[in-house]
Amino acid sequence: MANDYARPGRVRPAPENFLSDEDIAAINKGGRRDFLRSAFIAASAALAAPAVARAQSAGDPAILELPPWSTSLGLPVAANPYGMPSKFERGLVRRESPGLTRVGGSSVAFTPLQGLFGIITPSGLHFERHHQGWHDIDPARHRLMINGLVKSEAVYTMDDLMRLPAVSRIHFIECGANTGMEWGNVAVPTVQYSHGMLSCSEFTGVPLKLILDMCGADYKKGRFILAEGADGSSMTRTIPMEMVESGEVLVAYGMNGEMLRPENGYPLRLVVPGVQGVSWVKWLRRIEVGDQPWASKDEAVHYIDLMPDGQHRQYTSTQEVKSVITSPSGGQILLDRGFHNISGMAWSGRGKITRVDVSTDGGINWREARLETPVLSKAVTRFNLDWVWDGKAAILQSRATDDSGHIQASYGQLRAVRGTKSIYHNNAIQSWKVTESGEVSNVQVL
Amino acid sequence: MANDYARPGRVRPAPENFLSDEDIAAINKGGRRDFLRSAFIAASAALAAPAVARAQSAGDPAILELPPWSTSLGLPVAANPYGMPSKFERGLVRRESPGLTRVGGSSVAFTPLQGLFGIITPSGLHFERHHQGWHDIDPARHRLMINGLVKSEAVYTMDDLMRLPAVSRIHFIECGANTGMEWGNVAVPTVQYSHGMLSCSEFTGVPLKLILDMCGADYKKGRFILAEGADGSSMTRTIPMEMVESGEVLVAYGMNGEMLRPENGYPLRLVVPGVQGVSWVKWLRRIEVGDQPWASKDEAVHYIDLMPDGQHRQYTSTQEVKSVITSPSGGQILLDRGFHNISGMAWSGRGKITRVDVSTDGGINWREARLETPVLSKAVTRFNLDWVWDGKAAILQSRATDDSGHIQASYGQLRAVRGTKSIYHNNAIQSWKVTESGEVSNVQVL
Repeated sequence: MANDYARPGRVRPAPENFLSDEDIAAINKGGRRDFLRSAFIAASAALAAPAVARAQSAGDPAILELPPWSTSLGLPVAANPYGMPSKFERGLVRRESPGLTRVGGSSVAFTPLQGLFGIITPSGLHFERHHQGWHDIDPARHRLMINGLVKSEAVYTMDDLMRLPAVSRIHFIECGANTGMEWGNVAVPTVQYSHGMLSCSEFTGVPLKLILDMCGADYKKGRFILAEGADGSSMTRTIPMEMVESGEVLVAYGMNGEMLRPENGYPLRLVVPGVQGVSWVKWLRRIEVGDQPWASKDEAVHYIDLMPDGQHRQYTSTQEVKSVITSPSGGQILLDRGFHNISGMAWSGRGKITRVDVSTDGGINWREARLETPVLSKAVTRFNLDWVWDGKAAILQSRATDDSGHIQASYGQLRAVRGTKSIYHNNAIQSWKVTESGEVSNVQVL
Repeated sequence: MANDYARPGRVRPAPENFLSDEDIAAINKGGRRDFLRSAFIAASAALAAPAVARAQSAGDPAILELPPWSTSLGLPVAANPYGMPSKFERGLVRRESPGLTRVGGSSVAFTPLQGLFGIITPSGLHFERHHQGWHDIDPARHRLMINGLVKSEAVYTMDDLMRLPAVSRIHFIECGANTGMEWGNVAVPTVQYSHGMLSCSEFTGVPLKLILDMCGADYKKGRFILAEGADGSSMTRTIPMEMVESGEVLVAYGMNGEMLRPENGYPLRLVVPGVQGVSWVKWLRRIEVGDQPWASKDEAVHYIDLMPDGQHRQYTSTQEVKSVITSPSGGQILLDRGFHNISGMAWSGRGKITRVDVSTDGGINWREARLETPVLSKAVTRFNLDWVWDGKAAILQSRATDDSGHIQASYGQLRAVRGTKSIYHNNAIQSWKVTESGEVSNVQVL
């Protein structure tokens, strides 16, 4: 299991195939249909039969011999007072894209979506995108300044901020450049590299509106804020005041129950639900209230959209409705025919996911997937769909719809408007090709 | 910050007090009320004023000198492909209760609730309770057997299970012995030790009902299941079939987005929402369908309730409605008067939390707390309440109500029925005493 394509198990590469050739033959033949009530149950229940036979006659060592963990005393607690994953999961880690931006000043590490479940991203696997590297900042020395169009400028310590009324909310964060390579018709091999600048966590912090109220912000003139980070990159982003006034923008210190991780902005970052990650300024040190956008370097020359007519679109920061099948996905191998659970993630910067449709024939026919609860606004929603693979070539796609009525577009539809020269804000339908031998790879379908 | 009482910041012990005596004097005097709209904003905004004055005149080094992280290149990504918390958070770890059960065969590590936010428990801080220690089991050698009143017995590999339709749901898990010391009028010092056998995570797995359907379970005769773990403790628990038939009981492999941690049952555990943790059998290897409870050792001599008449109550496994204030809580110190955010957790094995009331005067007066979203069935709900501390002695309590209509009882009410000799299933109202000097300690209020 020591590679990043390894999970979930039913699509492991061949060396980790736990089923024998005889097993697979038995599965493909089917059987024991007397008590089965559906094609799904038929396909999946058949799996168990050879294992039973094996255990009872030919002898499955895992059944017939007691393993050491059943016959020995285990480890006491607190060997790791802060626990870590199993040694068998060591391959499931953040990865860099070789040659992409591997310098200390500008670096990316992708979340291994192919091995994740549900909607919460483990904090140890939260994607990273740094403009000047990351620091482990001493919270005792960290300050947040509020200035600009306010009656009283203020400087807060972490202690000051952590006394204030706190809220906790689950939201996704996606880098505006996620899936950026695909504009140029480059099909990166795995979902970790194609969609892995996406995470979803429970954030805890103080609504920025409350802090601006305390400082007497001028909401009439002050229609924008500037957020500034404490790292050396001069990261500064303009955010419209109406987002702050909605109460959604948080000055956050908590992520998934504990303090933010250093590489995700410890001890303080801005949370701007629905907006691209660069605006979620890490190591947040200053908020300025102003009367117009700042057009800082990171909004004037980066995170802008080059349109077919040569013009640039600026301040297109909402992450539009998007989804991706994470299993099966590129680099994985279907071990055999029969039942498979197709699983994926859907999200929208505009609100809640209302529906995800899945196609296994490249977009000709679609079936509605099951959405797991909770379905939350501006958060990842997990979807699942039953699929019985007949062993023929297939193309898997997912298409999400949000409660603003937006539907994810195909590459053909998106390129008709946006061209092929962009880097940012690609929310096209992703396609995974399955060959007859079960290999899954990234293909572009217009 | 290197001790377990350290978080959240506004209640840190004195050595980590970032406010000077002059600051505190200024806060207590108040001021700048011209633009303030409520007692809360008055109390909290006053905090910032001294910091501003300090920065602008006397000179706050944190403001006037650029810190090294603003003037140097940071670290590139992937130094830790699996990330860890900040070095400044090293004190926030699981802890054992000295002398309680510190042997390899029977051990406990408590979750540091005093430093957590929101509802998700970081997997590295999930509480531990082992009956024969823990193992890191090789998933390639793990099997799940289904037997008993079924048409076809079956043995599943992890690959078999991970092909099946999966669901993801957020639930709490609480040890039946959580808060057990308090029956005997022992007030343990911190919420980590009084309530820290509680965690809440997003679990992913296969509904057990589906697997039993596949095996042709006899639901008419088979009104109970037995769950058995693969460790050496012979952990076996009876679970009523109606819980399985509800679809809520899961054969789970995922927790908070990734595979279960070894100490929490990797690669497979049972999830039995609303029921005490011992029934969530770890390292799950067998499910048997039967026609009556098994009365195994862990349900005949442990996890039973000794009543005042000397009788034992058995199979009282639902975790009743309960709540606790996690901040401020025992061992913490209020740094000064004025605004404080009272925060805590509420949960019920019967369904959703509908209301949490908070008292600051030992139960005479109550105010309704704000519930953070999402509020989910059989999951932790986070509550918050604004509080302006006047510097006088106080007793903080929380009282939860669930959607079955149950309300958390006082110790007096609970003892009138249950006596004082129990170990398990204590859901009484917790009281934290605040002295005039701001010290918080555990007291019992009948």
